[in-house]
Amino acid sequence: MRILSLAFLSAVTAFAPLTRTSFRSTISLEMGKSQDELKKEVGYKAVDDYVKSGMVVGLGTGSTAYFAVERVGQLLKSGELKDIVCIPTSVRTKEQAESLDIPLVTLDTHSNLDVSIDGADEVDPDLNLVKGGGGALLREKMVEIMSEKFIVIVDESKLTDGLGPGFPVPVEITPFCHEHTMRQVAGLASCEGCKPVLRMGSSSSNVNDGDEIAVTDNGNYIVDLHFDTPIKDARKMAEDVKNVCGVVDHGLFCDMSTVVIIAGSDGVSVKKPKA
Amino acid sequence: MRILSLAFLSAVTAFAPLTRTSFRSTISLEMGKSQDELKKEVGYKAVDDYVKSGMVVGLGTGSTAYFAVERVGQLLKSGELKDIVCIPTSVRTKEQAESLDIPLVTLDTHSNLDVSIDGADEVDPDLNLVKGGGGALLREKMVEIMSEKFIVIVDESKLTDGLGPGFPVPVEITPFCHEHTMRQVAGLASCEGCKPVLRMGSSSSNVNDGDEIAVTDNGNYIVDLHFDTPIKDARKMAEDVKNVCGVVDHGLFCDMSTVVIIAGSDGVSVKKPKA
Repeated sequence: MRILSLAFLSAVTAFAPLTRTSFRSTISLEMGKSQDELKKEVGYKAVDDYVKSGMVVGLGTGSTAYFAVERVGQLLKSGELKDIVCIPTSVRTKEQAESLDIPLVTLDTHSNLDVSIDGADEVDPDLNLVKGGGGALLREKMVEIMSEKFIVIVDESKLTDGLGPGFPVPVEITPFCHEHTMRQVAGLASCEGCKPVLRMGSSSSNVNDGDEIAVTDNGNYIVDLHFDTPIKDARKMAEDVKNVCGVVDHGLFCDMSTVVIIAGSDGVSVKKPKA
Repeated sequence: MRILSLAFLSAVTAFAPLTRTSFRSTISLEMGKSQDELKKEVGYKAVDDYVKSGMVVGLGTGSTAYFAVERVGQLLKSGELKDIVCIPTSVRTKEQAESLDIPLVTLDTHSNLDVSIDGADEVDPDLNLVKGGGGALLREKMVEIMSEKFIVIVDESKLTDGLGPGFPVPVEITPFCHEHTMRQVAGLASCEGCKPVLRMGSSSSNVNDGDEIAVTDNGNYIVDLHFDTPIKDARKMAEDVKNVCGVVDHGLFCDMSTVVIIAGSDGVSVKKPKA
């Protein structure tokens, strides 16, 4: 049931923009290129620029990463890429990759990746990210933290001066006494001003389409931390939240991005972390 | 099935000494008082000295904590204790407390405890602990970390100059790509020299009585880190291990003990952390 839910979610985000994130990025539609054309452009560029034959490649999840996976499949089929193996970050990405005959492995046999490509829900000026609207944050982080290069692909609506207000920060917590754990997380000084909301729904995405508590594919719950003002110190918050007893992981991806490829109305641009 | 397994485990540790820990402490049997008499002595003393009417009390799990729970039941029945509520750290303890008519609550309604009483698998000179032989480390830590006072009750065989060699350190990890997570944990500089062993068995205890991977009551796996030489810096290791992506929590309880009550062959002694 969880697997079916995840597949459903990913299908939704990949093909029918219904989420908050997708809603924001529809602004680009008015600018000329369609949202999907922009996503395709950055997805393809990431693969063309960073994936080489012989590599171990992490494949992200979501509507932008979808096009990167598509491109890997194309280049393998044409023979331009050879001898690569990929690690998918979700069941949906695994299914897409399998349909394209992309050879797959897991972290259990390949702990060290050359490159991972994935989208993000928000990107700050230091290229710290919020991820996990889709509920796959743990698997994504496990794969991407092990990658020598982590290529982030987004449209310009995801850029922000400060993480938080534009997109809630998801935190994956164990179900046991989750109300207590929510209070502990929300009570951290580094989370000051956040409003914790337990994610409900038929899947672990933030679609919130049900009365039941959403369950991740790891059997945990998600609490979304909503902020009205930007998070002051995302790195400190990341450290503090992970340290709470009952927290499994969270959607702050700090100091992980090698490069962010941005699809804007006036073309594609690239941002690297300050030296 | 998990609940049944846990109940079975706790019954084993409470009534029929089969585990490594219990094996070690049978040495005390030769010294005069029986093992159970020693455990009863410290369990009762912890309650008599630290539990007062009106308190919120955390009840530990295991063969020594068993006697503390028994004592709370006695004092409630006699009227010497009134208006207390207790939070059990396992299904087995919950069942024992219910059988004694001890009023129970959870962390969801009571995040702040006055006192918790529990056993430990190892205690070092700084009163840092290894806990989790029984697989209940996450729930125990969630409860005990929220307690104003944490009273540890052990027999003298649990005292060690350095954590590690006497008892493996359990780490609770998510099942997804657990072999990878085991490698990441074992590869930490602060875990140098450890041998990681995935816990097998019909329950999450370290009885290792089966061919299947043991599953905790949170749906996770346990990797036991075996050390030949003492852990150099338990606090640093605790921090590093919790920080690994895929780790839920671990059995190092650092800087949590208010006092350790020790049953020795020549009587009961008490240790407090250095100022």
